[in-house]
Amino acid sequence: MSSSFGTLFRVTTYGESHCKAVGVVVDGCPPGLALTEADIQGQLDRRRPGQSALSTDRQEADRVVILSGTEMGRTLGTPIALQVANRDHRPQDYQGMRDIPRPSHADYTYQMKYGIRAASGGGRSSARETIGTVAAGALAMKILAERYGVEIVAWVESVGTIAAGTIDGQTLTRAEVDATRIRCPDRQAAGKMESLVAELKEIGDSVGGVVACAIRRVPVGLGEPTFDKFEAKLAQAMLAIPATKGFEIGSGFAGTRLRGSLHNDPFIARADGTLGTGSNNSGGIQGGISNGETICLRVAFKPPATISLPQETVDFSGQPAILEAKGRHDPCVVPRAVPIVEGMAALVTLDLALRQEARRAMRQQNS
Amino acid sequence: MSSSFGTLFRVTTYGESHCKAVGVVVDGCPPGLALTEADIQGQLDRRRPGQSALSTDRQEADRVVILSGTEMGRTLGTPIALQVANRDHRPQDYQGMRDIPRPSHADYTYQMKYGIRAASGGGRSSARETIGTVAAGALAMKILAERYGVEIVAWVESVGTIAAGTIDGQTLTRAEVDATRIRCPDRQAAGKMESLVAELKEIGDSVGGVVACAIRRVPVGLGEPTFDKFEAKLAQAMLAIPATKGFEIGSGFAGTRLRGSLHNDPFIARADGTLGTGSNNSGGIQGGISNGETICLRVAFKPPATISLPQETVDFSGQPAILEAKGRHDPCVVPRAVPIVEGMAALVTLDLALRQEARRAMRQQNS
Amino acid sequence: MSSSFGTLFRVTTYGESHCKAVGVVVDGCPPGLALTEADIQGQLDRRRPGQSALSTDRQEADRVVILSGTEMGRTLGTPIALQVANRDHRPQDYQGMRDIPRPSHADYTYQMKYGIRAASGGGRSSARETIGTVAAGALAMKILAERYGVEIVAWVESVGTIAAGTIDGQTLTRAEVDATRIRCPDRQAAGKMESLVAELKEIGDSVGGVVACAIRRVPVGLGEPTFDKFEAKLAQAMLAIPATKGFEIGSGFAGTRLRGSLHNDPFIARADGTLGTGSNNSGGIQGGISNGETICLRVAFKPPATISLPQETVDFSGQPAILEAKGRHDPCVVPRAVPIVEGMAALVTLDLALRQEARRAMRQQNS
Amino acid sequence: MSSSFGTLFRVTTYGESHCKAVGVVVDGCPPGLALTEADIQGQLDRRRPGQSALSTDRQEADRVVILSGTEMGRTLGTPIALQVANRDHRPQDYQGMRDIPRPSHADYTYQMKYGIRAASGGGRSSARETIGTVAAGALAMKILAERYGVEIVAWVESVGTIAAGTIDGQTLTRAEVDATRIRCPDRQAAGKMESLVAELKEIGDSVGGVVACAIRRVPVGLGEPTFDKFEAKLAQAMLAIPATKGFEIGSGFAGTRLRGSLHNDPFIARADGTLGTGSNNSGGIQGGISNGETICLRVAFKPPATISLPQETVDFSGQPAILEAKGRHDPCVVPRAVPIVEGMAALVTLDLALRQEARRAMRQQNS
Repeated sequence: MSSSFGTLFRVTTYGESHCKAVGVVVDGCPPGLALTEADIQGQLDRRRPGQSALSTDRQEADRVVILSGTEMGRTLGTPIALQVANRDHRPQDYQGMRDIPRPSHADYTYQMKYGIRAASGGGRSSARETIGTVAAGALAMKILAERYGVEIVAWVESVGTIAAGTIDGQTLTRAEVDATRIRCPDRQAAGKMESLVAELKEIGDSVGGVVACAIRRVPVGLGEPTFDKFEAKLAQAMLAIPATKGFEIGSGFAGTRLRGSLHNDPFIARADGTLGTGSNNSGGIQGGISNGETICLRVAFKPPATISLPQETVDFSGQPAILEAKGRHDPCVVPRAVPIVEGMAALVTLDLALRQEARRAMRQQNS
Repeated sequence: MSSSFGTLFRVTTYGESHCKAVGVVVDGCPPGLALTEADIQGQLDRRRPGQSALSTDRQEADRVVILSGTEMGRTLGTPIALQVANRDHRPQDYQGMRDIPRPSHADYTYQMKYGIRAASGGGRSSARETIGTVAAGALAMKILAERYGVEIVAWVESVGTIAAGTIDGQTLTRAEVDATRIRCPDRQAAGKMESLVAELKEIGDSVGGVVACAIRRVPVGLGEPTFDKFEAKLAQAMLAIPATKGFEIGSGFAGTRLRGSLHNDPFIARADGTLGTGSNNSGGIQGGISNGETICLRVAFKPPATISLPQETVDFSGQPAILEAKGRHDPCVVPRAVPIVEGMAALVTLDLALRQEARRAMRQQNS
Repeated sequence: MSSSFGTLFRVTTYGESHCKAVGVVVDGCPPGLALTEADIQGQLDRRRPGQSALSTDRQEADRVVILSGTEMGRTLGTPIALQVANRDHRPQDYQGMRDIPRPSHADYTYQMKYGIRAASGGGRSSARETIGTVAAGALAMKILAERYGVEIVAWVESVGTIAAGTIDGQTLTRAEVDATRIRCPDRQAAGKMESLVAELKEIGDSVGGVVACAIRRVPVGLGEPTFDKFEAKLAQAMLAIPATKGFEIGSGFAGTRLRGSLHNDPFIARADGTLGTGSNNSGGIQGGISNGETICLRVAFKPPATISLPQETVDFSGQPAILEAKGRHDPCVVPRAVPIVEGMAALVTLDLALRQEARRAMRQQNS
Repeated sequence: MSSSFGTLFRVTTYGESHCKAVGVVVDGCPPGLALTEADIQGQLDRRRPGQSALSTDRQEADRVVILSGTEMGRTLGTPIALQVANRDHRPQDYQGMRDIPRPSHADYTYQMKYGIRAASGGGRSSARETIGTVAAGALAMKILAERYGVEIVAWVESVGTIAAGTIDGQTLTRAEVDATRIRCPDRQAAGKMESLVAELKEIGDSVGGVVACAIRRVPVGLGEPTFDKFEAKLAQAMLAIPATKGFEIGSGFAGTRLRGSLHNDPFIARADGTLGTGSNNSGGIQGGISNGETICLRVAFKPPATISLPQETVDFSGQPAILEAKGRHDPCVVPRAVPIVEGMAALVTLDLALRQEARRAMRQQNS
């Protein structure tokens, strides 16, 4: 297990799908910050199951409680424990899957790794684990916004083969993202995506998609070469989200097909005297360090593994079996993945910002 | 700076392009292993500049020396310091670029982050930094091979728009990869790639490409949910390589377009009584944990930023400038990136293997 | 803040004196272990306030709940969250101390470090924070006992100037320690200690003391040179307990007065064919690594800073003030410190044991 | 192995007694600092063997070289590799000890832990390993001095039963410490100590001693509760030095005998409007956080284990043996330990200072 992430702003998550509670301990939160549950709840609501007909029917209120680290609405600088009680378990839904590891799910690998696994649900591989990330991410975003004016907005770029048209990540708002249930700001594409997801829910199949994310107004100079380059930590964070299969920063795989003379981002002088770049194939990061442009990333989510269509497979003993998964599962995770991607982006950005602040404090003295 | 990587097998690299030496300290190497410089040198030779006409003309012998941690050809279990002297510096090549930050290079961000930067060359953002990774990776590969039979083979899958045909990562050997200078096992594609790179070198431009990697015979059960999932650590490691823009595991972005019923990897019974999967869209990892199938990943490399074609840009003070970079630079990094990708894959795999060994030792007792 | 400890068996604690709950997340617990609250509660009962007339009158049931990481009484290998609700707060007791930092307490330094502090009680510097350590330590002890037969017993060696006679740490049991309320196995000394503490409670003063600890049946080979030597991690752990001022391993400060010819522990052949030592000035550790003998350590606890006797001091603004602390405080912490010292000893030992298991698994292959 | 220390200012050491080189990689050094080998060499000279007739006759010039991380005498913010070549090996001195583990030395535990050990000398447990600490510590001290005016001075407080009179750690200079070869500022005691050491060298025995250290002008607010309290990290660092057996902060073990009413440090108003304390039993740290007073600590060093007097012991196979160690060894390590203790103190202080700078940067915004 490695349930902690971050160096100075460090989160530690806990909880399975069907235990008493899930939560996160945030160590290293700056003191003196105004903080109540209301600052956290909004993103949890965007993540929770049962928000719309597109999602699983599992209903969880997912009310967060701040257990420690604040007094009279201010952070003390001590660890902030955020917790959400688990309510709506139906372990019986999972009984049939006890002996048959779900294809492309974590049932088999958890069993082999630990010699035991949660009898019901996906245990720690469950999307429920992401509650901690989303809660801590909401806290991180508040700090980033107040200190630097950072804005983080993610959206659904594609579902299956249905792709949104060009989205302007520079100006997009969360309200525009949330205007459709699928969270795709291209309304026409959104309509098609929603129809597809509804159809798949009906027939018991699933589909993948891509979530894009813009991190705006990031200070220049964040990112710790060599192994903690900004894009490296983003890649780790995004691939730590369940069901992810790929990550791109800036031009990504498409950029590999270009020549340097086209791909390079020429510098330009901004009105305020600083330098910017005329294009942004770099995705806001050069040499592992933010350059002040918007950080643009994309995350690939596979189709959810748990489907109710019958699947030919074998059971744990190797005997042929047909699996028809019961339970309530999302046919497509991307709309609910939007706040998770935002949360991960915030955790990475704030941790790197704190590390750079320490350097800057020492550097100023020397120059 | 964050120049360390790994939890139990932990590497720390140092060195810029034009200092006295570059190197790596490997902490946590198992004791009793037979080890001499010859075990390391091979991969360094595959990485070094000037190997072929396709690469930079910079010539470096890059001879590695083991400074500590072994006695009479055996590892002691103490830190192994591996070092390569820098010889062929030509800082004068960089003089003209002093005032003009190279577009899409790290000159600007290093200056902004540190308030200072190596006057010549890319400093720590240089590909020269990867010597430590390749050296430590060669050591890790030896341990993985002896202990588990793990094999790691990377190859060039595409250069610009020229893509190899289907490559069988299950059987591919390094000899087959090295059969062409571009390190693409599809000979026909390789020829085209080499022609393109030669042409670009001639005109002073550059191009990107994709490196694929297969990690074979990985034990089941490696990977530490949640934040150190196997694919998450691979993604961090790969995006920590200079010039990388994307990472895919298994089906990657293409997988997002499929339905679950097609994408899921059904389990099958192997002859030896263990379970395998009939397809491998998961890329050898499920729920962040290796499932025993070959781990398949792809890494996107952008076109190198340093080109000798003139570029319209601005200098550090914001004044318009034309940059014509001098110096000896690779028009395409992917052939030399092959051993770097392999090295990173080995560092991640061995560290996770050690972490799982600790668990297994305790688990056996309990079950 | 740095509320985490350990590399492979990693604990993260949270909670202040007067928030909703205190607790700990244990990451890296081996899977398959039988575990219920009953395994944890015993040590918490030994730590809790109000156990006897010698302690503070604050009453807390301190019932622990396992929130995650187990199913049907077995650990899953996932993070185990242990939590204790805070019940008996009386923040009004602290009102008078609001403007006057308590001498030798953390009020002043927390204010200066964080720019804010918990308005009531000592916040994170409170002994209440140690609940997480004791709970996680109880879990660690269970694993160590089952896997290796390790036994950890701490006891009160002195209170003020009253010192116990020679105690045989090789055979001492917890029952013998708990036979007196002061937890000193020398009954005669214990009686004097208890009288002194009762007297000090009466007059509102406090006194320090020394806790000794024996860690028995430790496997040979634990401890990670250089910076994580066994005694170095023990020293860190013990000095992280509130109110500690010193640490000794083996012969400690007294050993500095001896000559090597007297101080050296000669090796002897044990009946089972292994080597032991004829004396144990090394305290069970040589070169940072356990040698199989009993690990003997001693921890100095200062007199508690919060006393009700009037103290001449100044307030936060520098104005002279007389502080007469109210509230319910221990006149001497050592009896309640016994399970905390044991818990810290267990956390260190188990983490080092796991790290050595990883090495051993790789080493066996090579030899 | 755990050869790294620190969170933001992180050192990684390597090298055994008889390999090609020993050294340290310093990651996280602030950029822009003036730095040459001369800044480092002084402390290495104070540590090196053969300084005076009191020490081992082993002669090592111990010239440090900066391999990376600086350019034109300024730090780049990249890892600084500091290296010292090993020259004067005489492995033959150790031949006789091959089969007989030296009592109270690390020969036995290294063999048991690693299944192998450096055939000659103490390997990684050798005092030679401390070169990295001293070199990195000298660098840290320079930064602390320039940024905060911190001064770190250690001295010998006792050798065997010979103790110095009261030393004023507030004003003591290194010149005063170095005025005697034994590094005890009490000249009368120093003379006796030197006589004792000379006598022990003659007869082939050894003796222990205590090193005290003052860290002056430390900013208020350093130290990271809970597990990285200032005194906890100091304790870890000091117990990581070879041959240490104890650590005290402030009143230490003596403080356990006092009552709170005597032990508490009342606050006083300083002329500059800040608060100080009237006494300093706290040793400059309260609640794990520096309070602005001088940090006072003491470290116990045992008598060196390697003596040439014959010792009755057993060999690795358990057969009775007489060991008469050859080789050149210090009869008392404390004079050479002085710069090591200073170095460790600097590493801890700077790392905690950087961590607090990160917090302060965020805190200012909020208040």
